[in-house]
Amino acid sequence: MATRQQPDFDTVVMKFGGSSVADAEKIKNVASRMVAMRNSGRRVVGTVSAMGKTTDGLIDLANQVSAAPTGREMDMLLSTGERISCALVAMAIHDLGCEAVSLTGSQAGIETDAAHTKAKITKIRADRVLEALDAGKIVLVAGFQGVSPETRDVTTLGRGGSDATAVALAAALGAACEIYSDVAGVFTADPRLVPDARKLPRISYDEMLEMSASGAKVLMLRSVELARNHGVRVHARSTFSSEEGTWIGEEGMEQAIISGVTHNEKEVVFTLTGIPDVPGAAATVFDAVAKHGVNVDTILQNVVHGVAELSFTVPTEDVPLARVAIDEAISTLGPMKVEEDHDLGKVSLIGAGMRSHPGVAAKMFRTLADLGINLRMITTSPIKASCMITKGEIPTAVRALHAAFELETEPVEEETIRG
Amino acid sequence: MATRQQPDFDTVVMKFGGSSVADAEKIKNVASRMVAMRNSGRRVVGTVSAMGKTTDGLIDLANQVSAAPTGREMDMLLSTGERISCALVAMAIHDLGCEAVSLTGSQAGIETDAAHTKAKITKIRADRVLEALDAGKIVLVAGFQGVSPETRDVTTLGRGGSDATAVALAAALGAACEIYSDVAGVFTADPRLVPDARKLPRISYDEMLEMSASGAKVLMLRSVELARNHGVRVHARSTFSSEEGTWIGEEGMEQAIISGVTHNEKEVVFTLTGIPDVPGAAATVFDAVAKHGVNVDTILQNVVHGVAELSFTVPTEDVPLARVAIDEAISTLGPMKVEEDHDLGKVSLIGAGMRSHPGVAAKMFRTLADLGINLRMITTSPIKASCMITKGEIPTAVRALHAAFELETEPVEEETIRG
Repeated sequence: MATRQQPDFDTVVMKFGGSSVADAEKIKNVASRMVAMRNSGRRVVGTVSAMGKTTDGLIDLANQVSAAPTGREMDMLLSTGERISCALVAMAIHDLGCEAVSLTGSQAGIETDAAHTKAKITKIRADRVLEALDAGKIVLVAGFQGVSPETRDVTTLGRGGSDATAVALAAALGAACEIYSDVAGVFTADPRLVPDARKLPRISYDEMLEMSASGAKVLMLRSVELARNHGVRVHARSTFSSEEGTWIGEEGMEQAIISGVTHNEKEVVFTLTGIPDVPGAAATVFDAVAKHGVNVDTILQNVVHGVAELSFTVPTEDVPLARVAIDEAISTLGPMKVEEDHDLGKVSLIGAGMRSHPGVAAKMFRTLADLGINLRMITTSPIKASCMITKGEIPTAVRALHAAFELETEPVEEETIRG
Repeated sequence: MATRQQPDFDTVVMKFGGSSVADAEKIKNVASRMVAMRNSGRRVVGTVSAMGKTTDGLIDLANQVSAAPTGREMDMLLSTGERISCALVAMAIHDLGCEAVSLTGSQAGIETDAAHTKAKITKIRADRVLEALDAGKIVLVAGFQGVSPETRDVTTLGRGGSDATAVALAAALGAACEIYSDVAGVFTADPRLVPDARKLPRISYDEMLEMSASGAKVLMLRSVELARNHGVRVHARSTFSSEEGTWIGEEGMEQAIISGVTHNEKEVVFTLTGIPDVPGAAATVFDAVAKHGVNVDTILQNVVHGVAELSFTVPTEDVPLARVAIDEAISTLGPMKVEEDHDLGKVSLIGAGMRSHPGVAAKMFRTLADLGINLRMITTSPIKASCMITKGEIPTAVRALHAAFELETEPVEEETIRG
């Protein structure tokens, strides 16, 4: 994907999610946000998701008419949702006295590969968008979709697709990117669990990647990756207020060791025991799993009393596919024992400062141990430490970690880990 | 629009209206009708309208977000309805073991002028449809829409647009055209008013034009015109049964004098009196009316006691526009008196045989006079006679005319008008 040479922060891509355009009133609110931005002198590209539960309703219809809807037709069907909300927002903008034009993904030049229902953006031919911007119009681009130049078919981008559209457009236009949702930004922990969680003014791409991967819902992993790869600054903020949200960019909060605590309850742990002792056995398992597009997160392999044991976590929604993949591995490798644990969740501590503060993980484990919480699996990266624990213990664990690392108070100077 | 040289009745365009695809079960039924046709050895192009009340719902949303939605955005919005039903039918066909592919109007090469919300088809580039047919697929084409090559924008065809899509595709492919609806064909009168009304096995384009223009709802005037201009044979038949419907083509029922009685309650009569006696006064009025796209049907002008009086009928839905047009005419011509009569309806007698049987109109007037029905306006064409009467008298009038012309019995030989 080509990125414009000169950043053009006069242009801003504003992305609103499905709950922000769920009804006529909300659509008018989104329109007035875009008009206010335009009136402040900036060029505006809007990307909106399908209204509220529209996509779910369409998927439901597809399942009613067919036992196995084809990807191509699914994309033809689902891509209509974003077109509807784009056209409606454009109408509402007109009523506020601004010129606006809505474009389908295809009209906006969003080219993808031909992988239906999970296409990847390969190129953006932004001529038509630029033409409309040059004419002073607000340009609405239907999110979540594109066109495969190879097959000339409509494609959709899969989960997080509208965010990806917005970031990719910002990259192609050299523009800033604002992602609006019902969350006011990135917090040190889920405010529903931790009442004194703090909104971060900024966070680095790397930390945001770890946060998204470990359960923060404000931005999809995919769009953060895209933003990092193209150097797009993303502002995650609230649809319903004008306060500043969180800026995601090269630099995070330098003085902070830990940026936040995240948690994820939607993972299932598979454990394979008695894996035949042949070279590449684990590779065979993960090849099969990858072939089915299952996103494996944590992986743990060890040998207990001479028997190889392999555990890995899989998002709840990918469990059926993971089972198929494991059956395939068994048919190649021979029989082994397969267990599923649906009762575990993950708490993670994320912070770029961990790199220079090796005591963080130890303090995390001790905090949880002091509460009598059993750590079932542990994984770490240079800027993250994660523990699988019993789901029921997650709220206690998140609150305890948030307090132990004093995330409720703004860091003013570098601290050393105490204890 | 180019018409293929060789008629190719191996190919059939099957068009289903919104009530035929209103839910998942009905969509499956439509899919199985198409598959049955394909399995009989014919190449199948399917055109479907938006599901049930989808279009009304979208229009409602547009009116909620904007006081005056622009035509361009309206078309972007409304065109999604047919895409949804096409994709769903394609999925359902796949489940029945046939290959199918859905195409948007633009993908199907349906080019139109740029008149948003009421575009006219200017050309069909059928390459992609033919390619898919050659590959053995059932091709679903989203009805009611196209693309303007000039602006590259999505357009919609307005009222009757899906029928127009089907007929135009049949013309471009040299194919036969089947229009499926909840009506089993063209009847000698509305069966709800006349229980012994008879379904006509065939009817000529000219008669069908008059029938559609005077109230028969089975086919829109526009698609009949298109069919006649391109010599497309149209089969109007039931979605819910396999019985033959009515064939519309060059030839009607030669032995019949009268093909049917139609009625229309959705017309309003405007009467202008005291029209200034200047040359071209009437032309000024109708220029203004035409400019606003109002479809005037019956026109009556006469001079009563030296005062010029002009009456004309307008479809109920066009009344607001007609009022605007008349105000414009008044501002040019000077003041005149304007009356609206909302209490009248029209009964019409249609039959190619009238050309050679001049007594038909007289018999019609006598039949109605015998019932004490007052004829407020009369218009005739070579194959039609229409009378405006009080709405409440329409059922009686339709039944009486149906009986007087013995439409309940199949004509076996040429009759002469008795009486």
